[in-house]
Amino acid sequence: MTNPITSTLDAGQQKIAGDALQGTVVDLIDLSLIAKQAHWNVLGRNFRSVHLALDELVTAAREFTDSAAERATAIGVSPDGRASTVAKDSGTKGFGEGWTKDSEVIASIVGNLAAVIERLRERIGTTEDADPVTQDLLIAITARLEQLHWMWQAQIS
Amino acid sequence: MTNPITSTLDAGQQKIAGDALQGTVVDLIDLSLIAKQAHWNVLGRNFRSVHLALDELVTAAREFTDSAAERATAIGVSPDGRASTVAKDSGTKGFGEGWTKDSEVIASIVGNLAAVIERLRERIGTTEDADPVTQDLLIAITARLEQLHWMWQAQIS
Amino acid sequence: MTNPITSTLDAGQQKIAGDALQGTVVDLIDLSLIAKQAHWNVLGRNFRSVHLALDELVTAAREFTDSAAERATAIGVSPDGRASTVAKDSGTKGFGEGWTKDSEVIASIVGNLAAVIERLRERIGTTEDADPVTQDLLIAITARLEQLHWMWQAQIS
Amino acid sequence: MTNPITSTLDAGQQKIAGDALQGTVVDLIDLSLIAKQAHWNVLGRNFRSVHLALDELVTAAREFTDSAAERATAIGVSPDGRASTVAKDSGTKGFGEGWTKDSEVIASIVGNLAAVIERLRERIGTTEDADPVTQDLLIAITARLEQLHWMWQAQIS
Amino acid sequence: MTNPITSTLDAGQQKIAGDALQGTVVDLIDLSLIAKQAHWNVLGRNFRSVHLALDELVTAAREFTDSAAERATAIGVSPDGRASTVAKDSGTKGFGEGWTKDSEVIASIVGNLAAVIERLRERIGTTEDADPVTQDLLIAITARLEQLHWMWQAQIS
Amino acid sequence: MTNPITSTLDAGQQKIAGDALQGTVVDLIDLSLIAKQAHWNVLGRNFRSVHLALDELVTAAREFTDSAAERATAIGVSPDGRASTVAKDSGTKGFGEGWTKDSEVIASIVGNLAAVIERLRERIGTTEDADPVTQDLLIAITARLEQLHWMWQAQIS
Amino acid sequence: MTNPITSTLDAGQQKIAGDALQGTVVDLIDLSLIAKQAHWNVLGRNFRSVHLALDELVTAAREFTDSAAERATAIGVSPDGRASTVAKDSGTKGFGEGWTKDSEVIASIVGNLAAVIERLRERIGTTEDADPVTQDLLIAITARLEQLHWMWQAQIS
Amino acid sequence: MTNPITSTLDAGQQKIAGDALQGTVVDLIDLSLIAKQAHWNVLGRNFRSVHLALDELVTAAREFTDSAAERATAIGVSPDGRASTVAKDSGTKGFGEGWTKDSEVIASIVGNLAAVIERLRERIGTTEDADPVTQDLLIAITARLEQLHWMWQAQIS
Amino acid sequence: MTNPITSTLDAGQQKIAGDALQGTVVDLIDLSLIAKQAHWNVLGRNFRSVHLALDELVTAAREFTDSAAERATAIGVSPDGRASTVAKDSGTKGFGEGWTKDSEVIASIVGNLAAVIERLRERIGTTEDADPVTQDLLIAITARLEQLHWMWQAQIS
Amino acid sequence: MTNPITSTLDAGQQKIAGDALQGTVVDLIDLSLIAKQAHWNVLGRNFRSVHLALDELVTAAREFTDSAAERATAIGVSPDGRASTVAKDSGTKGFGEGWTKDSEVIASIVGNLAAVIERLRERIGTTEDADPVTQDLLIAITARLEQLHWMWQAQIS
Amino acid sequence: MTNPITSTLDAGQQKIAGDALQGTVVDLIDLSLIAKQAHWNVLGRNFRSVHLALDELVTAAREFTDSAAERATAIGVSPDGRASTVAKDSGTKGFGEGWTKDSEVIASIVGNLAAVIERLRERIGTTEDADPVTQDLLIAITARLEQLHWMWQAQIS
Amino acid sequence: MTNPITSTLDAGQQKIAGDALQGTVVDLIDLSLIAKQAHWNVLGRNFRSVHLALDELVTAAREFTDSAAERATAIGVSPDGRASTVAKDSGTKGFGEGWTKDSEVIASIVGNLAAVIERLRERIGTTEDADPVTQDLLIAITARLEQLHWMWQAQIS
Repeated sequence: MTNPITSTLDAGQQKIAGDALQGTVVDLIDLSLIAKQAHWNVLGRNFRSVHLALDELVTAAREFTDSAAERATAIGVSPDGRASTVAKDSGTKGFGEGWTKDSEVIASIVGNLAAVIERLRERIGTTEDADPVTQDLLIAITARLEQLHWMWQAQIS
Repeated sequence: MTNPITSTLDAGQQKIAGDALQGTVVDLIDLSLIAKQAHWNVLGRNFRSVHLALDELVTAAREFTDSAAERATAIGVSPDGRASTVAKDSGTKGFGEGWTKDSEVIASIVGNLAAVIERLRERIGTTEDADPVTQDLLIAITARLEQLHWMWQAQIS
Repeated sequence: MTNPITSTLDAGQQKIAGDALQGTVVDLIDLSLIAKQAHWNVLGRNFRSVHLALDELVTAAREFTDSAAERATAIGVSPDGRASTVAKDSGTKGFGEGWTKDSEVIASIVGNLAAVIERLRERIGTTEDADPVTQDLLIAITARLEQLHWMWQAQIS
Repeated sequence: MTNPITSTLDAGQQKIAGDALQGTVVDLIDLSLIAKQAHWNVLGRNFRSVHLALDELVTAAREFTDSAAERATAIGVSPDGRASTVAKDSGTKGFGEGWTKDSEVIASIVGNLAAVIERLRERIGTTEDADPVTQDLLIAITARLEQLHWMWQAQIS
Repeated sequence: MTNPITSTLDAGQQKIAGDALQGTVVDLIDLSLIAKQAHWNVLGRNFRSVHLALDELVTAAREFTDSAAERATAIGVSPDGRASTVAKDSGTKGFGEGWTKDSEVIASIVGNLAAVIERLRERIGTTEDADPVTQDLLIAITARLEQLHWMWQAQIS
Repeated sequence: MTNPITSTLDAGQQKIAGDALQGTVVDLIDLSLIAKQAHWNVLGRNFRSVHLALDELVTAAREFTDSAAERATAIGVSPDGRASTVAKDSGTKGFGEGWTKDSEVIASIVGNLAAVIERLRERIGTTEDADPVTQDLLIAITARLEQLHWMWQAQIS
Repeated sequence: MTNPITSTLDAGQQKIAGDALQGTVVDLIDLSLIAKQAHWNVLGRNFRSVHLALDELVTAAREFTDSAAERATAIGVSPDGRASTVAKDSGTKGFGEGWTKDSEVIASIVGNLAAVIERLRERIGTTEDADPVTQDLLIAITARLEQLHWMWQAQIS
Repeated sequence: MTNPITSTLDAGQQKIAGDALQGTVVDLIDLSLIAKQAHWNVLGRNFRSVHLALDELVTAAREFTDSAAERATAIGVSPDGRASTVAKDSGTKGFGEGWTKDSEVIASIVGNLAAVIERLRERIGTTEDADPVTQDLLIAITARLEQLHWMWQAQIS
Repeated sequence: MTNPITSTLDAGQQKIAGDALQGTVVDLIDLSLIAKQAHWNVLGRNFRSVHLALDELVTAAREFTDSAAERATAIGVSPDGRASTVAKDSGTKGFGEGWTKDSEVIASIVGNLAAVIERLRERIGTTEDADPVTQDLLIAITARLEQLHWMWQAQIS
Repeated sequence: MTNPITSTLDAGQQKIAGDALQGTVVDLIDLSLIAKQAHWNVLGRNFRSVHLALDELVTAAREFTDSAAERATAIGVSPDGRASTVAKDSGTKGFGEGWTKDSEVIASIVGNLAAVIERLRERIGTTEDADPVTQDLLIAITARLEQLHWMWQAQIS
Repeated sequence: MTNPITSTLDAGQQKIAGDALQGTVVDLIDLSLIAKQAHWNVLGRNFRSVHLALDELVTAAREFTDSAAERATAIGVSPDGRASTVAKDSGTKGFGEGWTKDSEVIASIVGNLAAVIERLRERIGTTEDADPVTQDLLIAITARLEQLHWMWQAQIS
Repeated sequence: MTNPITSTLDAGQQKIAGDALQGTVVDLIDLSLIAKQAHWNVLGRNFRSVHLALDELVTAAREFTDSAAERATAIGVSPDGRASTVAKDSGTKGFGEGWTKDSEVIASIVGNLAAVIERLRERIGTTEDADPVTQDLLIAITARLEQLHWMWQAQIS
């Protein structure tokens, strides 16, 4: 099927913005699954704080996933957020198996946020000329994840 | 680390209920990812109805995922809902690539719901003696998914 | 038309659960009409309490009607809640004509609740093996109606 | 018992307004039961839209039933909304048995609305002199049902 | 000062509608003060029902007072709802002094409602030609007060 | 296309009510655009009060536009609220260009409200026999606009 | 009838506190009627601000009336808030007839608040020993009225 | 352990205020348990009114318990609200066993409220010099309980 | 007095279900009092998390207490939740006196939850045949308490 | 009158940003009127979906109109959103007369959205240097309209 | 300018109460700035709990600042809450520079609360005779700050 | 202590963005204190409008303060919002002492907003290359303050 959704972007712009968004969708879905995994498996004296903070992260990741995927559709690019695609393409650092101490959870979340933010920063650069609308969304996602990055880091300082 | 969370179930009961819940967690996460994928990629005259109905399915799948995973923790079993685990163990029928016509979307959702329900029905049987509390949760999940199964089916009748 | 909605129940299970649900739909619609009739026609010193309590009963009966009817559809059985069917098949004790004293209203509601509960108790038994999901719904309806049965009875003790 | 609720209407006015309201109560209860029946039994590509629109009709019919019945009580007339009375006196066109295609559902709802509206229009005429307060309520009911009549008709145009 | 607020009504229409509204403002303020007085002074087994029902009457009377007074202003007539005016011009039956048994309260409220309704019914007649907008408001007030008249009367039937 | 929406009104009634409603739709859309224009361009010591009051007028005008347009559809008449139609047929007095002092804004709004109300009063007369349901809506619109007319006028008295 | 509501206060304390509360009830009802009267009759450039501020005063006066009256009942004293009692016993300065300029309204409200506050200050003194619970309520009423007194005064400074 | 929470009160003040608050905590917990007991066991024509009013009493008692206990902590005194302490130290009159007629329930609640209020009145006296902050809380609790005392008493007058 | 509330259970079933529910009522009231006691007396670095988590436990315990007690009434058994009964019959492990370190609080809550859950598990077994409606409630209570048991345990792992 | 609102932009920047905003105000008002027109006149099997989706478009267009107009005022430029200006300057494709089939409605909305988006894209370019604050708003408007453009397009794919 | 706001207090009372309120305004503004400073700069394992608790303190301090400042205006005293006044007159202990460990944050907040409470306690004494209304407000502020003082202290016990 | 919060910005970018944010935090805190000061001290006929509008400004300033300060933390820079820092570094024009006429208040607020906006405009320029995420936040703050600048200015035009 030829692309059924048209866009005011030219093919080159569409490719750059589309790739940036598809990468973001995958990273954010994985981030949300990691945060849920940690939400269930965390142990330790800070259980309650970490357990609740992880659900805030899940909520943020899910909302931004939807924004990024729907921005892809808006420029005529079909997003792919299926489990196998996420398992294959994600740029996170992953999360270990089984029950996990709260200090390890915090360190893992800080590392995963840093990895996702670094990739977003690159995409902010590449989309600036291709599509300022997409760039604006990536800036908004980065702003929130950097805020969370501080909050999680503050717990191990 | 020895299991840090104790349970009033004996080892055999814990194994049966834990397996049923872990399988349910994986199926439901995959179902939520499939429904989101369809939510973004659906095309056709019933776009709006299907687009909205898919988000109701996402909500249901996410809430039951949390219930099943936290029931696992409540009986001392660490749940695993990471992307690679889902990609490997899910019992759904999956979802195709790219933009998809609404009629295909509906057929795919009906098929995926049927597959997940069938596995839940089996687990209702196996957990009856092992843990009535877990069985009660699986019955509640099944009741809601069977309701959705009717609604999606009604659209192609 | 052959049955357009499929079910994981076999034909025998479907028949048992379907009959239980259809009978419940009819009883509950009649109960809601009786409660509304009483809501409008009650007279006496306890008018306000009874008038308000009847609307709580209406709400409960309507919500359970919907649950039972949609459970029937979920197992592939078409429910019938039309006025003539209700008039013909209901298992309630009915409600007299015209303005009615509050004490008579209370006695009538207690009697109608008892009649509906008795039939629900039987259906809990018959659906246990046929479909535990349906049974679970019937238990929930019974629990709420028995609570109301106590509250209405308490007023004439 | 002599009529326990007094009214500022004289006997003739009370009879005219009371008859108009009693007829309206019966028609509207039947309309709500028909809409619920359709809500459960509708099939087809527009399932979701029709399923949801039917519940809006149910809500409207139920609220107006209450208004009409309580207006009857306000003028000292006992309303009768029991199942047998509805089955006997309703002026709707009824609704067929079993699963029903969405196009048939729409046609049936349009027809039933038209029948109820026609009877309301007559009652607006007869109550003008007898009781302007009752007439005002019948006008409000008609306004809303005519709006719904347009919406349902628009779907088959 | 010459009348600072203009109206599309001619002087005769304005006088008729203005008188009807001024009379209504006074009656309704007095009704609200009576209901509050009863709210504080009621005694007896139905204390709680009557106490709460009186506040519903207060709310209704206050809202309609505002509607009637602002309708007067809308047609260029200054309303007068001061204590001395109410004490002098009210058409209610008043309320006795001190603690009052619930049965007496109910009888008094029924009587006061009847008196106010009777005067409203007359004003509905006189304003029909003068100003249908004012008449429409008086009909709405009457409809609600007649509903309350039934409810209070039902308690002594 | 022959008229796809049927009505219980005969052709003559439909014409009278339809014209009254179409005229109302155009006047109210223009009133909402004028109020927004004033909302943005008002200057002066009463800026804040006027700025806020104008948005209340916008809200009222928009809601009544929808009611009038949907009443037209309900009687089988297609409403026309496009910019060019509004620019051509509106019966308002319009609004000047650029920044405007608050006192001028108030005077302009009072004048526009008076013009729209005058036309509504005429339509209340013409629709009385043709369609009491339409008349009832026009009375409700007039009641609210006359209330606003008083409030705006009170500011310059 | 002997006093049906008992109190832990002795007769002297009851008399002092009861008189203070009865006087407060009367003053506050009159204040609420005055504020409503002004709410309807105010004219001038500050119409909207004054109109809205008056309703805040009405709300405050009504809530404190209820508190004071129910405090009287709580110590076994029947409160009297009937129109004739208010007209006879109120300690406010009253409010003039007909349409009133905003500046006059403000001055009148400031004067009425000052009169009511002065009487409350005296009652705070007399109830200190008789009943600290009553005194605490009078302090709360005074605090709010003095805040309003500042706000109204600030408008004429 | 030496007292870990410091206070600006001296030891004597702390002892007086602490004893007053500890006594209040115990009385209020017992009052809430008595009201719940009555809520479940009440029978009779006023069942619904009494059943609902008891839950309002439960809510009030629970909120004041928390306020009193947290005031104790705020002045460095550990509160004790354990079941055995309540059973041993409560100053209420208790509540009989089993199903209870509504008239008996009302009499019992009036008696229990009177007992608790009397003890609160004494504590208002003893804490005046020791800690006006604690006294202020006790006054607020007394005000609400005396209001409830009137309402419950009004039902048997 | 002979039992004023009838039940569809026979005497044996009623005895079994009634005993299970009475035991549950007592355990849950004690659990709520223990959790409140801990809520006030907890000290340590995790004060805030534990303080808040304890109020969630209080809320859960109070809601289930009401469900269990009203289920008892629904089967004609008078529940007993008075302080002395709780002090005498509770199956919890209790809670120590005075200020308590957060780690001790957590250990105590885990132990108390385990004790209550164990007793509930037994009652699930005994009520299965006697009354499935009661069993269903006990399963729901157990599910929630086991979830809390995990969460509290996770803090000391 | 010289411009009464100052700005930190120089005259050239103000001209560029002001023109971009004025053009946007006109396009968005017209878009909202077109969407309302379609909302009333749509016919066909997808009536309900399209009818509801059009109101979401109206809401978006109205909110962005306000944002753009108030951004113009914030930089000292008087916006013009009067009916005649809209009729003259709008860059939309317009909307046909009378009842319209749902497929035509969808095609028309897609075309109008595309026309408005294209003009917005140009303005994003021209305002980048003149005023990044204005550009940021235009990007936000474009992002939302492009999302809607996809959704409407998806229905005809 | 002579004092434009009058008061029922004499000059001496006004001076005493005014000084107490002005001092309270300054202390509370500083407390809110300190709490915000800590909210941003806190580090450590209890980051999340402390971060959230600090915002509760900010909210409390801001609300009481407003109450105290508006109480000053109510007695005719102009409050001064400007940055330079706060920097000069505040009676808090201040807060250090840069990132701060959670344990240091807690100790600092406890110290600052103690300092502010001590000053409030003195003002409660001085205002008792001068103005009981002001005293009542200072008691309420003290009650809340002492509750927070306990909660923050509990974290270091 | 070495900086405990890491950032993806290099040292130069961090310095530029950090300085911009620290300056913004100080200006906005001062703006909020000025607005509160004016909120309490304003006098004159527009008291109410200005009093309310000032609280909207307070809310905006407080929310942006938090956003700017937390953006600083997100890039590893400790923000400083203490009273002495604000008193020393703020770039506002300040606010005079004591009661202030509304016209002076308006002029002062317009001047202070202009001063803060000018400094924000400079920072938008300096942060463009250093950190687009920070720039985006400064643009959002400027957009809102420029809107308020128009509104306050409109009152003196």
